[in-house]
Amino acid sequence: MPKNLLYAQSGGVTPVINASAYGAIRAALTLPQINEVYAAKNGIQGVLDEQLYHLNAENPNEIEKIPYTPGGIFGSCRVKISSREGAPDREKLERIFKVFRAHDIGYFLYNGGNDSMETAHAISTYAKENGLDLRVIGIPKTVDNDLLYTDYCPGYGSAAKFTATAILEATKDLKSMAASSTKVFILESMGRHAGWLAASSALSRINGEAGPSVILLPEIPFSEEAFLTRVEEEIQTKGFCSVVASEALKDDNGNFISTAGYTDSFGNVQLGKICFTLEKMVREKLNVKVHTGLPDYLQRSSRHIASLADWQDAIEAGARSVFWMVRDGLSDMMTVIIRDMGTPYIRHFDFVPLSRIAGKTRTLPAEYIDAEALNVTEGFMEYALPLIKGEAPDNYHLGIPVYANLKYVMEKKKVD
Amino acid sequence: MPKNLLYAQSGGVTPVINASAYGAIRAALTLPQINEVYAAKNGIQGVLDEQLYHLNAENPNEIEKIPYTPGGIFGSCRVKISSREGAPDREKLERIFKVFRAHDIGYFLYNGGNDSMETAHAISTYAKENGLDLRVIGIPKTVDNDLLYTDYCPGYGSAAKFTATAILEATKDLKSMAASSTKVFILESMGRHAGWLAASSALSRINGEAGPSVILLPEIPFSEEAFLTRVEEEIQTKGFCSVVASEALKDDNGNFISTAGYTDSFGNVQLGKICFTLEKMVREKLNVKVHTGLPDYLQRSSRHIASLADWQDAIEAGARSVFWMVRDGLSDMMTVIIRDMGTPYIRHFDFVPLSRIAGKTRTLPAEYIDAEALNVTEGFMEYALPLIKGEAPDNYHLGIPVYANLKYVMEKKKVD
Repeated sequence: MPKNLLYAQSGGVTPVINASAYGAIRAALTLPQINEVYAAKNGIQGVLDEQLYHLNAENPNEIEKIPYTPGGIFGSCRVKISSREGAPDREKLERIFKVFRAHDIGYFLYNGGNDSMETAHAISTYAKENGLDLRVIGIPKTVDNDLLYTDYCPGYGSAAKFTATAILEATKDLKSMAASSTKVFILESMGRHAGWLAASSALSRINGEAGPSVILLPEIPFSEEAFLTRVEEEIQTKGFCSVVASEALKDDNGNFISTAGYTDSFGNVQLGKICFTLEKMVREKLNVKVHTGLPDYLQRSSRHIASLADWQDAIEAGARSVFWMVRDGLSDMMTVIIRDMGTPYIRHFDFVPLSRIAGKTRTLPAEYIDAEALNVTEGFMEYALPLIKGEAPDNYHLGIPVYANLKYVMEKKKVD
Repeated sequence: MPKNLLYAQSGGVTPVINASAYGAIRAALTLPQINEVYAAKNGIQGVLDEQLYHLNAENPNEIEKIPYTPGGIFGSCRVKISSREGAPDREKLERIFKVFRAHDIGYFLYNGGNDSMETAHAISTYAKENGLDLRVIGIPKTVDNDLLYTDYCPGYGSAAKFTATAILEATKDLKSMAASSTKVFILESMGRHAGWLAASSALSRINGEAGPSVILLPEIPFSEEAFLTRVEEEIQTKGFCSVVASEALKDDNGNFISTAGYTDSFGNVQLGKICFTLEKMVREKLNVKVHTGLPDYLQRSSRHIASLADWQDAIEAGARSVFWMVRDGLSDMMTVIIRDMGTPYIRHFDFVPLSRIAGKTRTLPAEYIDAEALNVTEGFMEYALPLIKGEAPDNYHLGIPVYANLKYVMEKKKVD
């Protein structure tokens, strides 16, 4: 008997999370096994609040614009359904299933990273334990690229393309000015747990141009001496030095080099701006003019320079997740990408149990890091290059990107 | 009798300064009145050092890639040929003309902003006073858009397009996360003397999306109370607030709100990062999570999202400057753009004496500012919209932009 499908977004957004939403929604709207298609407002929070958008009510033309839109088009969240001790919160799970039952949800798609897969797995486990008819699939998404068992995470290719292009352009700027002005440019990169994004800046060199001379990764303890020595050498030989630094650099003891001096509401130490710590260091020790860039959200919302390969895979990951769940009866899985060949890039989609993904982090492997040279290896370049290939199509009007203009028809509440 | 032409770049670069270089070089290579075409390395400094690239030696295919290349392709400089008191430095001028004579330079093009036009005018004046056969034209260039007598400065349209797109995308990101996480995003914009670039962020709203709710311009004294009140209102009504702040905000007394706490080698106060001053203010007073972006060089080197209108005008400004100088015998002028009509944008090129441009700043006029609403007016939108129209073509290989690969053949020294 046909059931309804619910899609939701979770965690920090990527330039192509909405491409996955589009793939999933279009597949769901096509399949006869699915009645109604819903999206939760602000991820799992929207399920808890019974705020579900009715996507069958949307104009098909606007649905076609969803993959052109950055951010999380249905809203995302940083909400866990586990207690502080890590065990799933029964009360929340019961509430979630009350909403699922009321709206006849038979299929649930959660589009997110590590923490989100934990949530998806908890929901799936609860369904199994209670003999409830619900299939759950996770769609991977993170610019940090730190999920296990997938060749890469949709979102990473596009954020990598932005990062490489940004440092390429900024290094051209720096080089023009260095003779009589600024000699060092430092770009701070996202990536709290792993150096994938900072490493991607090296792709800027692929066509023979100067990229960053120094890449500081969180996987390698930061040494002020090695850093300054390298910067000074570059200034002496080339006249300038371009640097990319991961936000989460640590010292030999594993302490963050730069913290903001306060903690968030969960008691987590807030990171400072590593770029300014480094800027001050270089200016005071080497006595040269330094410029500093901190893209922050620009790095993970830069849809205008999304990678075509990444964008298409994001769409396909969304669609395949629906096919597997609906046609093949799969559940409690995350969709992954498996590399068959690097050049040309040939990959296929597969799936991995959510339990194997949840709560684990894939850091940059040692063979991708040249710690001595403060650089990445050729192996990393071969790995990452296919992921930034091609330029995703854009949709401009009057010189500014055009995004989907959804009606956001809220489904009537049935619980309470 | 045919003479040689020298082109040079000066001051901070723009995404399209090389488009002007291309227009000028192609025109110069075509005209029979010109023998050899040179470019000075690092602006006027390259003339003083007698470092001239011989452009006739370049591969024509690579010359075609110059307008696709960000930064200053021949190197730029922050070098004045006046003394601290402002009078032209005779010794430097004599040296410049020694180099000009040695290389039979009859035409000199200086591509820059305010200070650069002062240099061009000093050179032109020296030639006139000494009966020397040299024609001088200035090609306007600045992302700051602060030159007088031109509808806009090539470079502004592209940096404006980047700024508007960046805040558009980042605001989409912010909106997705605001319900359970970050509620305020602050983007710092370049523009030490005028608010043109910060104002351009408002163009993000043209297709009906949310752009910045607050635009802080250097033309309006900063009021902490008005700022925080507005941010709080936005959070209460919309759930989030996106802010663009000019780097050079001042208080009622004209003092910078944020300084770096040190001065540069000329004794100028270095600006701090206004975005962090504001971030701290919002976090501590309103107790919400804040994200902050500081594009810095990314804002003025973002060739990958250059405006087609701006790019084409930059090329034409370069070419016309050569035509005027060579065919029409003009000298001591800067090329300007005159608006005939706004929509559709119809403009023509004209010229203005360098003496009228040099050392003056065009700030954002009062009729473009809605000080009460911390916003710009409809008048500004009408002014700026044509300047970001269209997307300049890009040239990617393997997912990364390809730039001109010049030989940089250095002309043999003849002086000393």
